[in-house]
Amino acid sequence: MITPSSPAPDQGTLSYEQSGVNYDLIDPLKVAAQRAAAATGAHLAAHGFSEVAASRGESAYVVDVGPFYLASIVECLGSKALVADEMRQLTGKSYYDAIAQDTIAMAINDLITVGATPLVVQAYWAAGGSDWFADAQRAQALVAGWKAACDRCGVAWGGGETPALAGIVEAGRIDLAASCTGLINPKERLSVGDRLAPGDAIVLLASSGIHANGLSLARKLVERLPQGYLTPVEPGVSTLTYGEALLAPTVLYSPVTEALYRAGVTPHYCANITGHGWRKLLRHPAIHTYRIHTVPDVPTVLSFIQRHAQQDDLEAYSTLNMGAGFALFVPADQAERTVAVAEAQGVRAWVAGRVEAGPKRLLIKPLGIEFGDDALQLR
Amino acid sequence: MITPSSPAPDQGTLSYEQSGVNYDLIDPLKVAAQRAAAATGAHLAAHGFSEVAASRGESAYVVDVGPFYLASIVECLGSKALVADEMRQLTGKSYYDAIAQDTIAMAINDLITVGATPLVVQAYWAAGGSDWFADAQRAQALVAGWKAACDRCGVAWGGGETPALAGIVEAGRIDLAASCTGLINPKERLSVGDRLAPGDAIVLLASSGIHANGLSLARKLVERLPQGYLTPVEPGVSTLTYGEALLAPTVLYSPVTEALYRAGVTPHYCANITGHGWRKLLRHPAIHTYRIHTVPDVPTVLSFIQRHAQQDDLEAYSTLNMGAGFALFVPADQAERTVAVAEAQGVRAWVAGRVEAGPKRLLIKPLGIEFGDDALQLR
Repeated sequence: MITPSSPAPDQGTLSYEQSGVNYDLIDPLKVAAQRAAAATGAHLAAHGFSEVAASRGESAYVVDVGPFYLASIVECLGSKALVADEMRQLTGKSYYDAIAQDTIAMAINDLITVGATPLVVQAYWAAGGSDWFADAQRAQALVAGWKAACDRCGVAWGGGETPALAGIVEAGRIDLAASCTGLINPKERLSVGDRLAPGDAIVLLASSGIHANGLSLARKLVERLPQGYLTPVEPGVSTLTYGEALLAPTVLYSPVTEALYRAGVTPHYCANITGHGWRKLLRHPAIHTYRIHTVPDVPTVLSFIQRHAQQDDLEAYSTLNMGAGFALFVPADQAERTVAVAEAQGVRAWVAGRVEAGPKRLLIKPLGIEFGDDALQLR
Repeated sequence: MITPSSPAPDQGTLSYEQSGVNYDLIDPLKVAAQRAAAATGAHLAAHGFSEVAASRGESAYVVDVGPFYLASIVECLGSKALVADEMRQLTGKSYYDAIAQDTIAMAINDLITVGATPLVVQAYWAAGGSDWFADAQRAQALVAGWKAACDRCGVAWGGGETPALAGIVEAGRIDLAASCTGLINPKERLSVGDRLAPGDAIVLLASSGIHANGLSLARKLVERLPQGYLTPVEPGVSTLTYGEALLAPTVLYSPVTEALYRAGVTPHYCANITGHGWRKLLRHPAIHTYRIHTVPDVPTVLSFIQRHAQQDDLEAYSTLNMGAGFALFVPADQAERTVAVAEAQGVRAWVAGRVEAGPKRLLIKPLGIEFGDDALQLR
């Protein structure tokens, strides 16, 4: 018998491509844009500054402005707000406080990978029409969640844009993004470049669920669930529904990286585990082998997705965070201290593996998975 | 006889409200957001920094980071891309090089109002689906125009986001925005606060046309034009169509503000003339009277819009830039020098009026227009 939470056996694997995002179409533009962007870095010399070339292709762009480095970024939430909109119809709750945190997390968790302290966040809330803002409960939740995330990260909310874009953004929808500016101060905190080396430990920080990547797949999957978003993710164990489990907000990791600095730990490198799942551990351009010896428990919502999408571990770990939201590459003798500092901030952490000399690959030993050099093409 | 470029007499005035943007619905959210944002400024103290309180409510947010001020912003293009999309259907050209410049101008022209040198721009290109990027001609024009605008302003293009947001952004459309980060260096360049004073001269910089504000109205107006976007704006004089005239890219003003700094001119205040038209001259929170004695020739496309929308001058100057894209408030003895510096950068400029002691109001003397204190509610 097929229970509501079991996949129908004849539906086959649901891959990311099938869920509607075709990276082949985006990537040629990205390459052209990256090439054009790289040519503009030289303009900084006229102002007496220079870019940190190693930050090209990293998650945030870094400029040397003398006494410190300046880091900046803009990041999109993606399609997670569509889940909140569907759930609103089903439960009457707005969920936009969580959505706000997700949006800020997309920007801040990327900005901190270069060693920056996030200072200012700007809001980009582009609605499909003025009437989006007429739903006071939802609008107030967005404001409250945005402020709470800024409070948690100690950043100033500088302002932002709230355009009504009928004809561009769909009616009833909102396109959410955040920009973030920060400083790498002192400059020794810079964590791009050639600090990463064999012998470094890989410390992973726990995710809270799907975060804000893999949502196209997660939304597509709803079509396979007899109760849709209201399908229990652990039938008989809890009443938590698939929709609510998806909407657990993304963990904000800057309290951890700031606490590490205060504790005297400077990561050699960081990776925010977002799109491309664990393949993001291959992000650094150098040639190293990354050996993982300890994987975390998989959040219920992600094992639910893996099971219903009939993905094997290779597919799941190449798409979803599978319980690890952020990777810190630290000197081996600081690994345990890194874990302790993270946990003191309320973020579960563990020493998951190490960097070794060898061909560029990621070995997830407990699962028998190997990703090669060709698994991640971001530059 | 009614020529194609004359308004049909029975259609009546087309106001901004009629064109679909209802600010009453957006503003309560804005107020709540501004209040919440203001409460987060105190977080900067933990990093040893502080906000420049006078920048709250200005076009860019400013933080005192010690050796200089840090300014940041995110800005949306708005609906101008829809005009490019329509014109693409009619002429086969893409126009996205101009659209790229418009988008960057929205961010940079705001950032410079606080006295900042723009340093880094991030691109936010959210498409309705991956297939937007499959149109190589259009995508390459967007990249080329973006780079050219960065070159013109001497900023580094740091990177950005190119999400495919099916279900949020409409199919075939793109939501364009830019974030910009800059420094106010030396700190004396800061142009918010109480420097603005009676006796200052008002220097206006010419616009190139509609820029990127008032497009909802301009698009709505097309319904009244028998030849739509292909209607000549000056029948018998040129073949320039309404659509192409609308798509003249926004002037980038940072080459002027940078040249002013090199020439030893520090504006006391600046206003980017965008939404709300000339009412933006009332932006500064202090109580002064702004007396305009010289207005520019109105760009053809704007007088065309005014005529066909049957707007009187009060309505037109409260919505459109009417030939003035940017306002510099400078010491009276530097007014002529300011004009000369701007024109040396290829931007037409003129001494347009002065700041006087008196109630808060804008007097456009040649047109007999007065805007009172209640004409602009931005804070």
